[in-house]
Amino acid sequence: MAKVVERPQEKTALRVANKPVSRIDGVENVTGATKFGADFSLPGMLWGAILRSPHAHARIRNIEYAKALEAPGVVTVATAADFAEDVVEPTSRPHNVFAGDFALFLGEPVAAIAAVTKEDAEAALELIEVDYEPLPHVLDPEDAMKPDAPAIRHGDGGDIDRTEMSFHSSVASSAEDLDESGNVSSQVQFSRGDIEEGLAEADVVKEGRFTAAMVHQTYLEPHAALAHYTPSGDMKMWVTSQGQFYVRDTVARLLKLPAHKVIVQGTAIGGGFGGKMTLLAPIPAILSKKARRPVKVVWSRSEELVAANPAPYSVIDVKIGAKRDGTLTALQGRVIMDTGAYPGSPMSTATMLLGSCYVFPNMELEGFEVLTNKVSVGAYRAPGAPNSAHAVENVMNWVAQALGMDPVEFRLRNAIKEGDRWPNGQPLPDVGGVEVLEAIKNHQVWNTPLEQGSNGKPRGRGMAIGCWSGGAGGSAATIKLEADGSFSVLVGTINLTGSTTSIAQVAAEELRVPLEYVSVHQGDTNEAPYGPVAGGSQVTYTVSLSAAAAAHEVLRQMKGIAAQRLGADVDDIEFDDGKMWAQGDPERYVTYRRISDEAVGSTNGPIIGTGHGKPARGNPGFAGTIADVEVDTETGLVTILNLVGVQDAGFAINPLSVEGQIQGGTIQGVGYALLEEIVYDEDGSVRNPGLLDYRLPTAADVPNVDTVIVEKHNPYGWKGTRIVGEPSIVPPGAAITSAISDALGIPLHNMPLTPERIVMALRDARSNGRSNGEPTS
Amino acid sequence: MAKVVERPQEKTALRVANKPVSRIDGVENVTGATKFGADFSLPGMLWGAILRSPHAHARIRNIEYAKALEAPGVVTVATAADFAEDVVEPTSRPHNVFAGDFALFLGEPVAAIAAVTKEDAEAALELIEVDYEPLPHVLDPEDAMKPDAPAIRHGDGGDIDRTEMSFHSSVASSAEDLDESGNVSSQVQFSRGDIEEGLAEADVVKEGRFTAAMVHQTYLEPHAALAHYTPSGDMKMWVTSQGQFYVRDTVARLLKLPAHKVIVQGTAIGGGFGGKMTLLAPIPAILSKKARRPVKVVWSRSEELVAANPAPYSVIDVKIGAKRDGTLTALQGRVIMDTGAYPGSPMSTATMLLGSCYVFPNMELEGFEVLTNKVSVGAYRAPGAPNSAHAVENVMNWVAQALGMDPVEFRLRNAIKEGDRWPNGQPLPDVGGVEVLEAIKNHQVWNTPLEQGSNGKPRGRGMAIGCWSGGAGGSAATIKLEADGSFSVLVGTINLTGSTTSIAQVAAEELRVPLEYVSVHQGDTNEAPYGPVAGGSQVTYTVSLSAAAAAHEVLRQMKGIAAQRLGADVDDIEFDDGKMWAQGDPERYVTYRRISDEAVGSTNGPIIGTGHGKPARGNPGFAGTIADVEVDTETGLVTILNLVGVQDAGFAINPLSVEGQIQGGTIQGVGYALLEEIVYDEDGSVRNPGLLDYRLPTAADVPNVDTVIVEKHNPYGWKGTRIVGEPSIVPPGAAITSAISDALGIPLHNMPLTPERIVMALRDARSNGRSNGEPTS
Repeated sequence: MAKVVERPQEKTALRVANKPVSRIDGVENVTGATKFGADFSLPGMLWGAILRSPHAHARIRNIEYAKALEAPGVVTVATAADFAEDVVEPTSRPHNVFAGDFALFLGEPVAAIAAVTKEDAEAALELIEVDYEPLPHVLDPEDAMKPDAPAIRHGDGGDIDRTEMSFHSSVASSAEDLDESGNVSSQVQFSRGDIEEGLAEADVVKEGRFTAAMVHQTYLEPHAALAHYTPSGDMKMWVTSQGQFYVRDTVARLLKLPAHKVIVQGTAIGGGFGGKMTLLAPIPAILSKKARRPVKVVWSRSEELVAANPAPYSVIDVKIGAKRDGTLTALQGRVIMDTGAYPGSPMSTATMLLGSCYVFPNMELEGFEVLTNKVSVGAYRAPGAPNSAHAVENVMNWVAQALGMDPVEFRLRNAIKEGDRWPNGQPLPDVGGVEVLEAIKNHQVWNTPLEQGSNGKPRGRGMAIGCWSGGAGGSAATIKLEADGSFSVLVGTINLTGSTTSIAQVAAEELRVPLEYVSVHQGDTNEAPYGPVAGGSQVTYTVSLSAAAAAHEVLRQMKGIAAQRLGADVDDIEFDDGKMWAQGDPERYVTYRRISDEAVGSTNGPIIGTGHGKPARGNPGFAGTIADVEVDTETGLVTILNLVGVQDAGFAINPLSVEGQIQGGTIQGVGYALLEEIVYDEDGSVRNPGLLDYRLPTAADVPNVDTVIVEKHNPYGWKGTRIVGEPSIVPPGAAITSAISDALGIPLHNMPLTPERIVMALRDARSNGRSNGEPTS
Repeated sequence: MAKVVERPQEKTALRVANKPVSRIDGVENVTGATKFGADFSLPGMLWGAILRSPHAHARIRNIEYAKALEAPGVVTVATAADFAEDVVEPTSRPHNVFAGDFALFLGEPVAAIAAVTKEDAEAALELIEVDYEPLPHVLDPEDAMKPDAPAIRHGDGGDIDRTEMSFHSSVASSAEDLDESGNVSSQVQFSRGDIEEGLAEADVVKEGRFTAAMVHQTYLEPHAALAHYTPSGDMKMWVTSQGQFYVRDTVARLLKLPAHKVIVQGTAIGGGFGGKMTLLAPIPAILSKKARRPVKVVWSRSEELVAANPAPYSVIDVKIGAKRDGTLTALQGRVIMDTGAYPGSPMSTATMLLGSCYVFPNMELEGFEVLTNKVSVGAYRAPGAPNSAHAVENVMNWVAQALGMDPVEFRLRNAIKEGDRWPNGQPLPDVGGVEVLEAIKNHQVWNTPLEQGSNGKPRGRGMAIGCWSGGAGGSAATIKLEADGSFSVLVGTINLTGSTTSIAQVAAEELRVPLEYVSVHQGDTNEAPYGPVAGGSQVTYTVSLSAAAAAHEVLRQMKGIAAQRLGADVDDIEFDDGKMWAQGDPERYVTYRRISDEAVGSTNGPIIGTGHGKPARGNPGFAGTIADVEVDTETGLVTILNLVGVQDAGFAINPLSVEGQIQGGTIQGVGYALLEEIVYDEDGSVRNPGLLDYRLPTAADVPNVDTVIVEKHNPYGWKGTRIVGEPSIVPPGAAITSAISDALGIPLHNMPLTPERIVMALRDARSNGRSNGEPTS
């Protein structure tokens, strides 16, 4: 179990919250009973298959599919022509179901077929005749920024839809986007003080150029969706997605249906990490509308790796200056983010986060989002933040080293606190950066010197911190008292991370019943209260408040019934453990079961309450990583010896769940640091579209992640709760890179540090005669 | 369309309510897309089959099913031993899933098998060896009341559960039940004044003994249920039932599960009429719990006719006295109701309803519920009321005839009104009996003399009225504003009669949007707000109030958002047609769509509201029938020439739906009057367990039912709404019997008046040399 660093809070009265609880859905999950996206079928159902562009960039002159329609089992074909008003290069990938006049990346959907079997559908794809005129393409964002680069976009493109990215971060950029030109789809600037002065007054200045690879969210379960357009014009859908309401609204808009006629049941979800929103859903929807039969589409892993919405490749320059006493004076940063064929990358956030952990009196940050002929990028757990932290935190460690300071002490001296401002000018609430740093400082691993191994392989230690703003969307919950005195909670959010269990804990705590007396249900989009996308770490943060409000309303009604029965004043009613009584007379009680019965027969009617609202504001979450590594300098293979994840959870409603989140994010950070990269060939095709070649961290790659939960009270959350899901992925890449750098005595700049890259970096360092200093790899 | 007799009310502002609207689910229903109970299946699903007692009464010495378990495909067997604590003759049929030590009627479930196919399950039934000791049985309730009759019950039986019947009528009996003895399971008495004096002061006294047959509700769709006991111990069920919460609570109690672990989705339902509650559901539930696989059971029509819960056979004596001026002086009545093998018949209600339409200054009513070795009875649309009306209304017509008064005028002189009391002492609210009688009096059919046909066949006219108290249970509804400005309503009641459409009209009217902007959804028992059983005509009556309350809460929140945006006072906000504005400035409006958007981003959060409550009281509904008939005296065949249904709906939310209810109830009354009867052989077996021999009214048997909707404002209902579903079935049996009597010139006493009974009655009358007068048939 995680060690919890508790701050003194009123926890004595707690009985369900703040206690480690196994996931309510755990048994169903491990016994295979849970139904995920691909597990839903309907009688008379067709299967869909997708035809994808074989060119990274091409004009589509014509699509002819008469032959495909005559193929065995084929019922219908859909193309961009079925979304007539949306074909002209929309800037939003979710709203561009099929390529219109141009295919902008290799793998972009061009058409889809619905047939009686999956095999029939796939076989008929070959019979669709597409007349392509190949066009010059560009894959590297720095190449794409050059004046003579091929233009990715052909029309004016309209307004850019940044809805998806907005789910993940509630931080607004105070700087206006500058004019866009050429393939730069977005630009941002944040500045403070005078950067030149800041650098001039520094005693130490360090800088580097850092790259982070395009990586895939690699959820266990690929995209899957089943759509059934009924005779009465209802579009019923079963979709694995992080946001059933977002799917609903997107499909409704694309198919021009009223929102309540699109009924989306978000299924149990096998991971999402920001990457599973609406990419697939409109395809079975349009096929079903045309075929008037249910249609299911399930992506292959290869389709996932070629054509989903991975995390962006970025090139980040960072320069940091500090005085001899360790006071920071300046931060200069420049982000180039490869957004692929559609805008919508987390470039603004990544740029701002460069200056989000420390107080820099002088700052100049600029960011560029650049179009290329690659798959468009999406959100991946704290989108853009691992890229930022990788750059800033490595340079911070170099500065500390140059100053001869402990990197944790250096950070503590400059750590951002309540009232300090982020680069966009936003003043910070009570954040836990200092507490996270203190937990690292006090951690046994950090205080145990790293001994060299007996095999002669060099070892190193690194640490880093990072933060994430997170979402704070509006949500609602309904609670009702059942006939036997138990409670049902209804929410509209997807149970992506075990949030259902945490919400049950909140309701049980407020209603003062054992956890077994509460069940949480996720209705479809018509049945359930609105809930935000399960992204931006916001679900437990916001729904806990709604659930608590609903519980209070339910208690209010229950007290009314109890007061009437007991002949007492409603304000004197006390309650616990499924009973209510009048103050001072606990022996004469009414059970919740009896209250339920009486309520139905009274003018109150059945006991039911809704809670709705949104947190007054977001409050960033901080995380830190300590990594100890050993490097085989011959093969370049890195072994992680110790991995410590520290995170401020505000108030850990379910410490077991928080620990799981910290461990999951940290391990995904290992993927960023050492293994994962979508590799493009020159023609724009993905060279490693399978899990044999796209390497994920396995149990063999990672030691146990030792976790520490810090609880820095968040005044805007339920009992101090703050966002949890994302921050843990932010620092590991930087910490591990720094540890390897420490082991090898050379600066390292690129993620992932595959064995090949490490061997090359060592070779470069040797050939340059340098074992430390300026950037080499 | 129905003619609506309107009373002056404020209807000018109405735009959606009180307008005829096609059922929202109509297209799905007529295209076959709607999924009813038997249409649900799950992977790995087993089929269940039920072994039934071949004896009307027997001791069960032993059940051996080892051989059945070895049969091909068989997975498990369930018997009463699986409900150990409930086997000793419970008095509630729903809680007695299988016969325990005794089988009490032929067809009673003794065991059930779950197997891979339905055929496997049915084939293996023969391999269950049951050691029966046949016992003497009794089928006729009057025989069962004799001192030497075999005892039906063997234990003390415990408390009688009258839950199901309570759904249908909110009328309480003020008389205490007398001691039970022998096979009389319940007794009731109502008295007022002095019956002997009342009869003595009468100038005319008429009396008769009337029988009504045991008839089946004959819903189109037989009982069907699918149960899935999941690895985490959830019992998920898809059941065709009138009350998903009642199924939930019954299964939870029987299987000893917490209520929220039994998740019942009431499916679309192909009729119920009171007869479709929980009879079947526990069987697939226990089979699934034992097999750990989904189990489906679907009844055959024969199982329905042999072993469901039909309407009771009754023998009713009525004597009525009146003065020469038409003033009623006395009512004496005695009800013997055959409840079959389990108590729970509508005997009390039937007894009380004898005196419910007119003011009788002196009254003596008694009722006996009698056990027999037949299937136990259940509710059927206004349970017991057609039996009562058949007796009272025929005698009323004889009295009118003897007085030389028009039967409508006679009734108007004595009709019950607000403030008058029912036999149980309950004072009446504002009822519409007088208005219904006036609508009959003014009807074209009533005012057009009945001409004799050219074929020489005698013709006759009859009229009758009747009433029904109905239910008024607690209910709740949730409404939320969707992203596009439309609304979703969530309820927990079954859409048995088209109530969903009426509720959508209520919400649209309150929210001032077109009907297309509102959808109504029925969640499962965990998702949906509690809703009462769809029985007792109560759903629209009670849920309309909850939906209106939820709409008001939603509007309150919406006005808050609008006021903020418009910089206006919230009390000044006006709204219509999807827009809100500040009073006096309608040009500067906010759309509902915009309000939805702003709310999610505000501290209000998503707009959602619940409404909960119950009507302050029930308020009976009155109906009347005019029937013109022609009788073939040689064959006994009756042809209905005109059939008029008049009913007070209070306020017809959807006149089209009200008309459908009146027509449906009236036609079922034709079944009571002329065709339907479950016929028992001496051994206790049903002689006509199929729809070839159990004759229902078809289109060939019934003319168009001319309907008149009366609107007598009900102060307890939404805009005056009162119960609608049941009253229309009450008077047709009496009116048609009376019309045949009028045609033939002989009194008639038994329903149904099959051709055989009519020929026999004519023969009896001829042999007695009487063409009018005392009872003969």
